[in-house]
Amino acid sequence: MKKIISLIVIVIVCFINSANAQNYKLDSAAFRQISNHILTNYDCYKNLHDLCKQIGHRLTGSPQAAKAVEWGKETLEKTGCDKVYLQEVMVPHWVRGQEQAYLLGNTGLKEPITISSLGNAVGTGESGVQAELVLVNNMEELNRLKPDQIKGKIVFFNYKFNQTNVNTFDSYGPCVYYRWGAPSEASRRGARAVVIRSVSSAYDNKPHTGSMRYDPKYPAIPAVAISNLDADHLEELIGNKKKVSMFIRTTCQMLDDVKSYNVIGEITGSELPGEIICFGGHLDSWDIGEGAHDDGAGVVQAIEVIRVFKKLGIRPKRTIRAVLFMNEENGLKGALKYADLAEQNKENHILAIESDAGGDVPLGFSMTMEPSQRGRVTQWKKLFEEYGVTNFEREGGGADIGPLHRKFNTPMMELMPNSQRYFDVHHSANDVFENVHRRELCLGAIAMSHMVYLVSLYGL
Amino acid sequence: MKKIISLIVIVIVCFINSANAQNYKLDSAAFRQISNHILTNYDCYKNLHDLCKQIGHRLTGSPQAAKAVEWGKETLEKTGCDKVYLQEVMVPHWVRGQEQAYLLGNTGLKEPITISSLGNAVGTGESGVQAELVLVNNMEELNRLKPDQIKGKIVFFNYKFNQTNVNTFDSYGPCVYYRWGAPSEASRRGARAVVIRSVSSAYDNKPHTGSMRYDPKYPAIPAVAISNLDADHLEELIGNKKKVSMFIRTTCQMLDDVKSYNVIGEITGSELPGEIICFGGHLDSWDIGEGAHDDGAGVVQAIEVIRVFKKLGIRPKRTIRAVLFMNEENGLKGALKYADLAEQNKENHILAIESDAGGDVPLGFSMTMEPSQRGRVTQWKKLFEEYGVTNFEREGGGADIGPLHRKFNTPMMELMPNSQRYFDVHHSANDVFENVHRRELCLGAIAMSHMVYLVSLYGL
Repeated sequence: MKKIISLIVIVIVCFINSANAQNYKLDSAAFRQISNHILTNYDCYKNLHDLCKQIGHRLTGSPQAAKAVEWGKETLEKTGCDKVYLQEVMVPHWVRGQEQAYLLGNTGLKEPITISSLGNAVGTGESGVQAELVLVNNMEELNRLKPDQIKGKIVFFNYKFNQTNVNTFDSYGPCVYYRWGAPSEASRRGARAVVIRSVSSAYDNKPHTGSMRYDPKYPAIPAVAISNLDADHLEELIGNKKKVSMFIRTTCQMLDDVKSYNVIGEITGSELPGEIICFGGHLDSWDIGEGAHDDGAGVVQAIEVIRVFKKLGIRPKRTIRAVLFMNEENGLKGALKYADLAEQNKENHILAIESDAGGDVPLGFSMTMEPSQRGRVTQWKKLFEEYGVTNFEREGGGADIGPLHRKFNTPMMELMPNSQRYFDVHHSANDVFENVHRRELCLGAIAMSHMVYLVSLYGL
Repeated sequence: MKKIISLIVIVIVCFINSANAQNYKLDSAAFRQISNHILTNYDCYKNLHDLCKQIGHRLTGSPQAAKAVEWGKETLEKTGCDKVYLQEVMVPHWVRGQEQAYLLGNTGLKEPITISSLGNAVGTGESGVQAELVLVNNMEELNRLKPDQIKGKIVFFNYKFNQTNVNTFDSYGPCVYYRWGAPSEASRRGARAVVIRSVSSAYDNKPHTGSMRYDPKYPAIPAVAISNLDADHLEELIGNKKKVSMFIRTTCQMLDDVKSYNVIGEITGSELPGEIICFGGHLDSWDIGEGAHDDGAGVVQAIEVIRVFKKLGIRPKRTIRAVLFMNEENGLKGALKYADLAEQNKENHILAIESDAGGDVPLGFSMTMEPSQRGRVTQWKKLFEEYGVTNFEREGGGADIGPLHRKFNTPMMELMPNSQRYFDVHHSANDVFENVHRRELCLGAIAMSHMVYLVSLYGL
């Protein structure tokens, strides 16, 4: 029966496609025009260079984040789009301070080790924390330990990135718990601090930071990441039945909230201005590296969509809006504010697209929407094929467009680049401009522009 | 009518798939086992490290090429496969020698410029060549020049890599003529030497070398490449109506042929040993960089197929054979020898697979074969999808398996990695181990292993 239904669907799609032959040709020509322009001008790459090299990393609340807001506004204004404006939002202001750590062993071992405090974590205080390390590979192992095996110690969560998943986002998900929630689980059992293995696919010597949250029921204890090579080294040391202690001194702290902004640029729809397609990435980044893939790429791609529409004189029927969100990394305040204002202003978003999975070569779009809408998008697949964008199967959306989706059930999509390299650099000192590829970044901007072009023309 | 036929085909495929449900499950499990093993052991990456760092670049005829033969033999032997052997072949022995060049202008300009002689080119002699540069962007522009505008000059072919093609191989093809054949066209018109813009997608300061061939009807004149940034600079200098000359001194030369080898490792088929599936890459590389993508990647992937079969105890029904070809870059002598010996030994190759498009993330296989065979392969597509290998549409094969195909009409395939980065590094000093990504290289080896697994089981 299922097969018969499939056949009927195929026949219907064939008829629809025949009816739309003229549109297909026009759309295909528009796709080509957009692609040729971006691949030969690559303004988004030059913009990324400026963002990474003139401003650098830009954690929420930092002077660089304020500069990035200015830069975003000016860069959008330069596109000549209809409106550029800011949405004020109060955001957390966490600062890293100083970091110092070494390993200590009963055989006279004293080795410095590079650490990176997890975002939102408390510091150790000036005098630091020194205690024996207890290695657990996962929560099950933690649960099996007796209270006196944890109390007063430093828990080392050595949970490993699963290298067997082909899509690395499938491996990222399970690891995140050990960064986000596990520190409080250690605190609950009396630990003095937590060290985590970096949430990363790379075998290198860079620790990867990222957001954490304390469970208010238990004391907030310091939490830091070490690199995967150091984690392997530590595993070996402890595995050799040696008692290994660690000294950690961090002065990170959460300061008072500060005022910041989402930055928005839009082209008003010529026929249906009330139907809004928003797309974007986040302007803030972690405070190491340059936030090039995460999420400078998404930011410059969103700006590029607006720029290419203006440059090529494509007047969208529906309103298209680039949103540079503030505070995705450690609070999501910008995204929440955006959704609140959309409600307050009675805005009608017909689609939200996020680019926050890096600037590598795009392979598809993940999406969360009604089956009929997904069917509509899938029908356009043929147009995307020659640009290598062929995967429309995965469910997905994005952190910054999540609040909008939850409030209005807005259909959402995320640009899906090749995932192999992203978690090598993500949240680390290696997330720099040099690790973004010019043509691949451009192809992502092209895919976003293509999708916005179709939805602005045909709706969803 | 076409649609009705399509529908019938779909129905038939559905029935076949139902009948093969058990196989699909088994094959899918085998795919997973192969993938998990390679992604967690990544021996091919370690092998590439050894090849690039212990031997380095290995141009045909060089001592490093001889070392690479030894290395290939030993590495294949370590897999424990049934047979490892060499195929002797006489190969050209071109040596680069010294290179020196500078630009000279009538305003006192004297700027050193980095050059790379094209492979097989003659040198300038010790005293060098100095002459005015004549810039042409393509053959049409050369054809429009009068004889005295070329005679005694150095022709600068400034043909640009077309950045608008999404698949960069589509841009590579047209450029190659300016490296391979155009120097003789300049010589025919009386030029003393040729400079070409690098055949590359990169905007950097590395010249990209590559093979050329002299038309025996005209004098062999020196031919060198300059980087794309230098080409832009030169274009600007000449565009400013300045007369620019160039001094070139190169001592490259072709020496006598030397003895070398293809290296072969195989597992004999348990049921149909006479049906051979061969797959490979080329062991030689250009003499700058480390030949990491071109074609260390293909070499270690081919070895990995053999290794994973042995390691996982997969006994192929048909014979599977890894071939490390010698002299792909400047003569193809190994490939020609391989095809000759196949004929002499009355071998029956049912498929030849090449990996010579770099070690980036695999997206599909290009192929040249009968429609029925292509249909068979396409039917397997579903199995490959979760590994990101989805493009089975392009026609293609490879230089090293071409002679076999031409002799026997052997079906051929080439692994098709993401093409965006390959021509950035191809034939340049940037083609080094550090520019190959561990997981992406492994995924290529996995795709090759999967394809060999299916064909060794089901034939083609």
